[in-house]
Amino acid sequence: MIMTTQFLRNVWYVAAWAKDLDRGSLISRTVVGEPLAIFRNELGSVGALEDRCGHRGVPFTVGGTCRGDVIQCPYHGFEYAASGECMRIPGQDHIPAAAAIRSYPVVEQDLLIWVWMGDPALADRRQIPSHPYHTDPAWKWTWNELTIKVEWRLLIDNLFDLSHLGFVHRSTIGGDDSDSHMNAGIATRREGDRVYMTRNLTNSVPSPFYAAMTDWSGTIDRWQEVDFVPGLLHIYSGAVDAGEGGTEGSIRSGGVQFHHMHAVTPVDEGTTRYFFSLARSFRLEDDALTQKMDRILRATLDEDVVILEAQQLRYAADPARALLNSRGDAAGVLSRRMVSDLHDAEQKAAAVLA
Amino acid sequence: MIMTTQFLRNVWYVAAWAKDLDRGSLISRTVVGEPLAIFRNELGSVGALEDRCGHRGVPFTVGGTCRGDVIQCPYHGFEYAASGECMRIPGQDHIPAAAAIRSYPVVEQDLLIWVWMGDPALADRRQIPSHPYHTDPAWKWTWNELTIKVEWRLLIDNLFDLSHLGFVHRSTIGGDDSDSHMNAGIATRREGDRVYMTRNLTNSVPSPFYAAMTDWSGTIDRWQEVDFVPGLLHIYSGAVDAGEGGTEGSIRSGGVQFHHMHAVTPVDEGTTRYFFSLARSFRLEDDALTQKMDRILRATLDEDVVILEAQQLRYAADPARALLNSRGDAAGVLSRRMVSDLHDAEQKAAAVLA
Amino acid sequence: MIMTTQFLRNVWYVAAWAKDLDRGSLISRTVVGEPLAIFRNELGSVGALEDRCGHRGVPFTVGGTCRGDVIQCPYHGFEYAASGECMRIPGQDHIPAAAAIRSYPVVEQDLLIWVWMGDPALADRRQIPSHPYHTDPAWKWTWNELTIKVEWRLLIDNLFDLSHLGFVHRSTIGGDDSDSHMNAGIATRREGDRVYMTRNLTNSVPSPFYAAMTDWSGTIDRWQEVDFVPGLLHIYSGAVDAGEGGTEGSIRSGGVQFHHMHAVTPVDEGTTRYFFSLARSFRLEDDALTQKMDRILRATLDEDVVILEAQQLRYAADPARALLNSRGDAAGVLSRRMVSDLHDAEQKAAAVLA
Repeated sequence: MIMTTQFLRNVWYVAAWAKDLDRGSLISRTVVGEPLAIFRNELGSVGALEDRCGHRGVPFTVGGTCRGDVIQCPYHGFEYAASGECMRIPGQDHIPAAAAIRSYPVVEQDLLIWVWMGDPALADRRQIPSHPYHTDPAWKWTWNELTIKVEWRLLIDNLFDLSHLGFVHRSTIGGDDSDSHMNAGIATRREGDRVYMTRNLTNSVPSPFYAAMTDWSGTIDRWQEVDFVPGLLHIYSGAVDAGEGGTEGSIRSGGVQFHHMHAVTPVDEGTTRYFFSLARSFRLEDDALTQKMDRILRATLDEDVVILEAQQLRYAADPARALLNSRGDAAGVLSRRMVSDLHDAEQKAAAVLA
Repeated sequence: MIMTTQFLRNVWYVAAWAKDLDRGSLISRTVVGEPLAIFRNELGSVGALEDRCGHRGVPFTVGGTCRGDVIQCPYHGFEYAASGECMRIPGQDHIPAAAAIRSYPVVEQDLLIWVWMGDPALADRRQIPSHPYHTDPAWKWTWNELTIKVEWRLLIDNLFDLSHLGFVHRSTIGGDDSDSHMNAGIATRREGDRVYMTRNLTNSVPSPFYAAMTDWSGTIDRWQEVDFVPGLLHIYSGAVDAGEGGTEGSIRSGGVQFHHMHAVTPVDEGTTRYFFSLARSFRLEDDALTQKMDRILRATLDEDVVILEAQQLRYAADPARALLNSRGDAAGVLSRRMVSDLHDAEQKAAAVLA
Repeated sequence: MIMTTQFLRNVWYVAAWAKDLDRGSLISRTVVGEPLAIFRNELGSVGALEDRCGHRGVPFTVGGTCRGDVIQCPYHGFEYAASGECMRIPGQDHIPAAAAIRSYPVVEQDLLIWVWMGDPALADRRQIPSHPYHTDPAWKWTWNELTIKVEWRLLIDNLFDLSHLGFVHRSTIGGDDSDSHMNAGIATRREGDRVYMTRNLTNSVPSPFYAAMTDWSGTIDRWQEVDFVPGLLHIYSGAVDAGEGGTEGSIRSGGVQFHHMHAVTPVDEGTTRYFFSLARSFRLEDDALTQKMDRILRATLDEDVVILEAQQLRYAADPARALLNSRGDAAGVLSRRMVSDLHDAEQKAAAVLA
């Protein structure tokens, strides 16, 4: 198979929400093409093994168990430690070295399960992007999780090129004011393995989403600050009444603000798992507002899925055909260049080892 | 991918019924493997663009619009003229030449939308086969449209080798008289890029379809005249009481006659879109007859689909394996030879350009 | 396509139950990748043709007929003898030699339809494994038939490595006593083109299946004798109260015994058709017992299907990756070696002919 995408391996990817892993449970996830059995053992710690028993290749996740600190294959009961070492073969004493399987570094942080798909020696948990808003009582958040039939880089493009809000999301988060989206002031920069974008809309008509948040005097000034490392894209956004300082960056009193998490985990060449949360710092107890936000955000994601899955069909039909970049793609272009640099570096390192 | 079929490009293909294109609408059709956005703009004229925006490759037909005389992409609002020229990029003034996309010649004629997939310089609308019966008040017609999982040439074979009527269509248009079908007098000839066949059945027991048309004295003489150019096959058929001149060609009074249109549009290597109509020149106001014809013809098409899709499975498993030709395949053999000649000529012309 | 499995052709495979072929009927079966039309003609004899008419490649099994001793194609009525010879082409007298199609030796024996996919000159019906229990009134049997998305050799491995009973089939035929399964005494041997295994469990807690058969004093001694030729695996099994001679082989009074048939017919590289029967020699008239056995055996097969189809996914993702063999795989290893030897011999013989 010719690989048409660029998978990065030396990345912390979100594999699951922490809530999806009870003690003693075992779930199946595929990340950058590799099937994983992700578990939380009965002692509470999390881990990941390749989801394929070293004996006859049966996946652990079709009825295998996680008892004590041991993963057991459902077929003939081979038992594995979290390290991938085979600890027991029922019916025989000798355990050949070849029975061992691959394990992957896993960390639980910010109510998320993170997995490292690259060289374990390079796995540094301090590099996991911090998202403290999931556990900070000053913030109230809603979430979503989708598996989208799209190559992961097309989803990153989408999240950076917010000019689509005025077209795809007219009736949800964008509003019927495509000019203000298209004429937004944009600044982008790359710093090492990180890409930043800030985007300011002035005198914008509040979208249905913004209109639901508070009573505005009239038009608003909106800002969006995007911070991307492979695996995760943060967006810090908000709005104030027009002229009240929304474009200044630091002065944001009197309006509303949000912190979004967009974790983008490649599944295979044409599939991406997308973990999303949006935290707000106002009207925390207003359940009607929470539900309304949930509804609008779900509709917003559905709007993207239609576009992205159709785009993927065209992309996959001819991956070599060039895409055209417009002004709105500036940050996407930087991020693709960064991904490409990181991919080259990984390939070179792999070639040295081989 | 190795191409196992022979797609002709310098052909006028039926892409849709005119009725399926309201003003301001945009529909998705794939012809010879290429996805098209076919539209009728708000001024009433029809056109076709490749269904892929020049910006990020999103298809127009997943929510794009056709307003005024402009096609707009649903993702970031790029706008195109019917020529494929990009007229507007929201948020920027400069429109790079690379934003232009391919457009295809389209003509509306005889209540059909015709598209030319080849070299636009060769598109001559006078070459579109005429089928005036769709708009002639002396004829009443019924129609059907099917997408069949079969390579297009197998459908052409089917339409030429009418000896299958006595087997596949015993209970519909063929009748339980396979001998008369098999012993029919057949004459075939090729004239340039056209293949003709005439076929006469004498003393044939009326099939259920013919029996429903009128009161026959006993057996009948039936004729079928087939006229094929790539993209379209006409059949002029009819019957008179046996001995009343049905085999003479020109004397056809006292019986019934039909003009069929069979537009055969290749979708991809294993899929064909089939547009069918059958016009009659008698009992025009008899709605019960119209409904009965509709029922029988729909059943007839369903009988063909079962055979053709099963045949395709065997064909696709080994496309190189030879088919055997029998007496009934004479016209099919001529038509395949003509298709092959035309295909060679197109390949040669393309090689000269390259 | 690169073949990843090893199909044996000089084998008698079970293609169907005899009961599935009424006189004059025609059914579709695929064996080692080749589509067959299996029929019983109106005179009562069975046969198999390649399921593809020599004319235009249409399968006989989409509406073709078997009248008298002739198979007729549904498309244009070509007629074939059981030998594959074309006997009639409607509408023409000349029958070209190229119209003939392949026929396959077929035998009806023990209420099964057996087909030989290899060189017809080598087809010796005396080599068909005998299974007299289907017609012996001293035995009462139940049966099942499944199409499983698994490579056929993985199913043979499963049937030989009965140590999985203590894990996969805890609640059905294995029981919750995996130690006795894992520590079973096993003896294996290959004799020419046949592999045997005997397996004895002593002091084993009766599984739910065994518990339903009779009133045991306490633990039981169980035996399983497996006899494999490609195409069919017999298992002779049973149990007696612990210490009553169950491990001696010949002394089996006072307990229960079963004769199983497991016919394993490769369909394609990733699909296998599995014909199963289990005969008992006790409580023959006890319908409630029969129904209970049926229920437990069906549940047992379903347990295997989940494991096998998941295993196939991992196997197909990387067929070259080695499987690990444990003590329980001894007979499976012998059988794979035998299959590989037979496959090499067939390939060599084919190369000599070519």
